[in-house]
Amino acid sequence: MTYRITMGARVRKSPFFTATVAHGVTQFSAYNHMLMPTSYGDPDAEYQALTQRVSIWDVACERQVEVVGPDAPALVQYLSARDMATCPVGRARYTPICDHDGTLINDPITLRLSGDRFWLSIADGDLELWARAVAVERGLDCAVFEPDVSPLAVQGPRADDTMADLVGEWVRDLSFFAFVETNLNGIPLVVCRSGWSGQGGFELFLTDGSRGGELWDRVWEAGLAYGIHPGTPNPAERIESGLLSYRCDCAGSATPLELGLGRFLTLDRDDEFVGKAALLAERESGPARRLVKVSLSGDRLASPSEHPWPARDAHGSPVGEVRVAVWSPALASNLALALVEASAAGSGFTALTPDGDELVATHLSFFGE
Amino acid sequence: MTYRITMGARVRKSPFFTATVAHGVTQFSAYNHMLMPTSYGDPDAEYQALTQRVSIWDVACERQVEVVGPDAPALVQYLSARDMATCPVGRARYTPICDHDGTLINDPITLRLSGDRFWLSIADGDLELWARAVAVERGLDCAVFEPDVSPLAVQGPRADDTMADLVGEWVRDLSFFAFVETNLNGIPLVVCRSGWSGQGGFELFLTDGSRGGELWDRVWEAGLAYGIHPGTPNPAERIESGLLSYRCDCAGSATPLELGLGRFLTLDRDDEFVGKAALLAERESGPARRLVKVSLSGDRLASPSEHPWPARDAHGSPVGEVRVAVWSPALASNLALALVEASAAGSGFTALTPDGDELVATHLSFFGE
Repeated sequence: MTYRITMGARVRKSPFFTATVAHGVTQFSAYNHMLMPTSYGDPDAEYQALTQRVSIWDVACERQVEVVGPDAPALVQYLSARDMATCPVGRARYTPICDHDGTLINDPITLRLSGDRFWLSIADGDLELWARAVAVERGLDCAVFEPDVSPLAVQGPRADDTMADLVGEWVRDLSFFAFVETNLNGIPLVVCRSGWSGQGGFELFLTDGSRGGELWDRVWEAGLAYGIHPGTPNPAERIESGLLSYRCDCAGSATPLELGLGRFLTLDRDDEFVGKAALLAERESGPARRLVKVSLSGDRLASPSEHPWPARDAHGSPVGEVRVAVWSPALASNLALALVEASAAGSGFTALTPDGDELVATHLSFFGE
Repeated sequence: MTYRITMGARVRKSPFFTATVAHGVTQFSAYNHMLMPTSYGDPDAEYQALTQRVSIWDVACERQVEVVGPDAPALVQYLSARDMATCPVGRARYTPICDHDGTLINDPITLRLSGDRFWLSIADGDLELWARAVAVERGLDCAVFEPDVSPLAVQGPRADDTMADLVGEWVRDLSFFAFVETNLNGIPLVVCRSGWSGQGGFELFLTDGSRGGELWDRVWEAGLAYGIHPGTPNPAERIESGLLSYRCDCAGSATPLELGLGRFLTLDRDDEFVGKAALLAERESGPARRLVKVSLSGDRLASPSEHPWPARDAHGSPVGEVRVAVWSPALASNLALALVEASAAGSGFTALTPDGDELVATHLSFFGE
């Protein structure tokens, strides 16, 4: 069954909306109270463009939380389970953010724009409310708000060629998670070597929402020589490449240690941060669950799973959930992420589909390893 | 143009999802990270059932933030711009909640379940993050979390008859915003006289998400004698009845005084609460903008507006936005809510549609008056 998405002012249109319509977008979801394109109608072509050529994505829904002011470094450091005090200006870091119980509440890329100015480029969730409440209640002298910033992603092996033609050869020398503020014939943007794929590429943080159509068109024209195709965050490629989809993979109720994000935590810091005691205790005892990558038996899945599927061990006992399942072109098999009890995480289990099929899940790896 | 909604684990299915599909749902949006039915394909029939008979709505996406513990009353009182200390157990209140600048960040119905236990039945936004951050940072002894609670609304002039047949005649005596914990042959729920329409009715807060299908079916069977029809929160009726749609009507960036919610505020309280100083200052100076109800010239709108339209005064100067426009069966005209500069709010202005038409907006009333 297919269902229409209702459009209205509650879920905002992106600055690139008109461009995505012109390029044949067919599906949307909502993300951070904004429409997010999720398909242009040809998943195979979109996967191929992303992995073999270059792809352009409207990810304006990846909203920013700006933190600026004298105490901005202190707030960001206190909120982040990763040390951010050592992050240089002009660099970004992947930053797990937890609540006081050590549960992950968002996993932004944090860009340090200056000594006292940051953008937290957020996953789906109102992190602004959390950050603002903490700032005010602690009496920190900084502003926390959503600025007019809309990312456009250029991803794929020809992303460098596309961007070099567009902004200049210098962009090839930008290292991973480095960024520069620049403009494109007056269109203001921040160009960062980042993006939610393992294919390489850039995110163009447009800082004037009225110029989305112009920016899209400029990127598109530059990419034509390299076979550019409209695309979206790709449900298969991101699992193949080991990228977390925060709310999708854990329902917003797991710890970064359960999710295999340990290497992004700085737990042995001297300074206090939100969730520190809980995370240290969990590191000691070991996480109760683990996010694992598994292959799934059965015919090729026609489309990504619509909701979590129950997972059971060899005795038929529930061990957790297959959070997301999808056909993987790279593996030529069905691929899934499951959040399961730690005792079951290293071995196989079964997954019950909505059609009543019991698929065999074969352990591939712990997520993040 | 119409677009599909993509389904996946990031946006949860409601406990009533299967029932809504069986009853012919055709459109969804996402609200509080959950799918929300928005149409069954016949807006006229849905409006008629709601205003003349009885309508059943899956509003499970109206999630609850539970606050429980010794300091729960203190937290709720501190977060709320309305006095909640005087709210009796078994009663609900409409509760504007602001940030420290006096901007509305949510407008839940708050149910007081016991002396130290509350549900904040929230509009679209992660109020849980805000409430939890404030609680922990202030050292308050209470838990803040999302419980397993999913509202099902029964709305319309025959809602009382439907519910009396279903749970007993006692329900007719339930006063507005009063609620009782009960069960229906073992299905646990809280029945409250409330709901997002002006037609009267109830919200059934199901407290066991595994029993959504059963509850829907029981309500449906009881309503058959009264002409029950599947429905959704209604974009025309709610404006006719003067009910706010928080994020839709103000983009999350207005104060309760701008939105005409002054009668729900208790600004002259002795105790401190979030936003108090800002709201007192604004009351003194008067709000900079006002939300107004206007009629719009032109042919009957085929469907509700998809995004805000620019509003201009007689001189062509921008004065704000028409946030939402819809055909009103009750008024037999196009009806809109506009957020405009206070100086322009009492008079007419024009609204520029996506088709380039300039519609004449005629002032009907200030919202909330």
